[in-house]
Amino acid sequence: MQTKEGSKIDSNSNIKIGIFDSGVGGFTVVKELLSILPRIPLVYFGDTARTPYGPKSPTILKQYALEDARFLVERGANVIVIACHSAASCATEELRTRLNVPIFEVVTPSVEKACKLTRKGRIGIIGTRATVTSNVYPRLIPQTLSGAKVFQQPCPLLVPLVEEGWLKARETRIIVKKYLRPLKDKQIDTLVLGCTHYPLLKPVIQEKAGKRIKIVDPSREVAEKVAAFLIENDVESQKEASADHEFFVSDLTSHTPEIVRRFLGRKVELVKAVPKSLD
Amino acid sequence: MQTKEGSKIDSNSNIKIGIFDSGVGGFTVVKELLSILPRIPLVYFGDTARTPYGPKSPTILKQYALEDARFLVERGANVIVIACHSAASCATEELRTRLNVPIFEVVTPSVEKACKLTRKGRIGIIGTRATVTSNVYPRLIPQTLSGAKVFQQPCPLLVPLVEEGWLKARETRIIVKKYLRPLKDKQIDTLVLGCTHYPLLKPVIQEKAGKRIKIVDPSREVAEKVAAFLIENDVESQKEASADHEFFVSDLTSHTPEIVRRFLGRKVELVKAVPKSLD
Repeated sequence: MQTKEGSKIDSNSNIKIGIFDSGVGGFTVVKELLSILPRIPLVYFGDTARTPYGPKSPTILKQYALEDARFLVERGANVIVIACHSAASCATEELRTRLNVPIFEVVTPSVEKACKLTRKGRIGIIGTRATVTSNVYPRLIPQTLSGAKVFQQPCPLLVPLVEEGWLKARETRIIVKKYLRPLKDKQIDTLVLGCTHYPLLKPVIQEKAGKRIKIVDPSREVAEKVAAFLIENDVESQKEASADHEFFVSDLTSHTPEIVRRFLGRKVELVKAVPKSLD
Repeated sequence: MQTKEGSKIDSNSNIKIGIFDSGVGGFTVVKELLSILPRIPLVYFGDTARTPYGPKSPTILKQYALEDARFLVERGANVIVIACHSAASCATEELRTRLNVPIFEVVTPSVEKACKLTRKGRIGIIGTRATVTSNVYPRLIPQTLSGAKVFQQPCPLLVPLVEEGWLKARETRIIVKKYLRPLKDKQIDTLVLGCTHYPLLKPVIQEKAGKRIKIVDPSREVAEKVAAFLIENDVESQKEASADHEFFVSDLTSHTPEIVRRFLGRKVELVKAVPKSLD
């Protein structure tokens, strides 16, 4: 059957979900998928050799996303999840045109959730500069909720703060407060964490946003979307009690395993692999 | 003649200096070269498509540095300056082995200057995680100044703070203070700014370090080294009153020209170009 995610799925085939991200941030999506679909095998690719995607242009992001997704398809993935907001903002249509597998991404389910949660129709977005510049949220949200107002704030310091491990540090709290101030001034009632790294800062973000602002975590939303899709398409869950997962990164430093542990809450084996260049 | 920088130079040839960096930080080196050698043409390459080099492994950095340097040689550069500390730490010998032009880099002249300036032989290094992990400064400094002690501090947040333009912000002052505290506890008397972005934070760094700590700016040191080399080798300075310069970046976003202006103090034309991949 043809799905709205852009391609067919064979209900008798063994499902393998491929997740890619600009780096290690996509492990927040992996964590949610493992929690919701523990018996479906996953293959992850983090483009740590070219991370971050945030400050890069749409042209280069389309190229990188296509290389990343093809790498996963070559390793048996028949469902693709774009965990990176920057790539999702710029490259989803490109991937749907070029690849013959369903493509999920973090933006659309977050838009839907934010539109459900908001009472006043005033929604804040925090993300990298690329995600904010792409204007994907201000474009999509009013299509789902007519008249909704979207206010954006690029937060380039939050990714390095997470990777530094300063999840509750004084410096982090001050910077989060500074970034959220203009959004609070606009009286938002819903806030989308528009970058895979941000769920690790959710406690500080919730504290500085205040209890009245509801937070949308795209990692959770996309994982629920994939689960619903598998149920709708009568895909049998795998028989094994525990699935085999594979985690690839394009560069592996001595610091990488510790960062991944911070995201996933446990250690996993990381394998270095480089996708083929398109040129 | 054979030089210690690893290759020959023809004193009658027209000099063109090629500078490469992981991104826009190398413009601090360009600024110093323009100030000291205003009539020598420059060609710059900033690998903004793959920036930052800081968190990446030595293997991948050698590959990127070789691609970047070859790109500059193809565009007529006959002297190469590695402006990126991460690349200089990992890839200088590789470039000297593979390329037939003199290779300058930011680390060696900074080591020499720090060893000249220190009175107590206690030298601090701030840099990216890659530069710190490479241990290039702790290895080289005691070779120049026997018994010297080197104390290092990785500062992953300073690059995004500079690119955010928060050069004197409260958040920046707090973070700089936090990073410098362990080095001050070690009673350093000299501090090397081991990353091209850091000269833009020099006022805050000097304030938080205190007046007694002398600061070494590698951008200045490498530019003086290149100037001394050209004089030693009787290279005629170019006849033109003003030289033609070329500035290439591998990715160009709407934000890039403003960041470059911040580094260089003036606007320049940026051209997008991608070096050939080695594989």
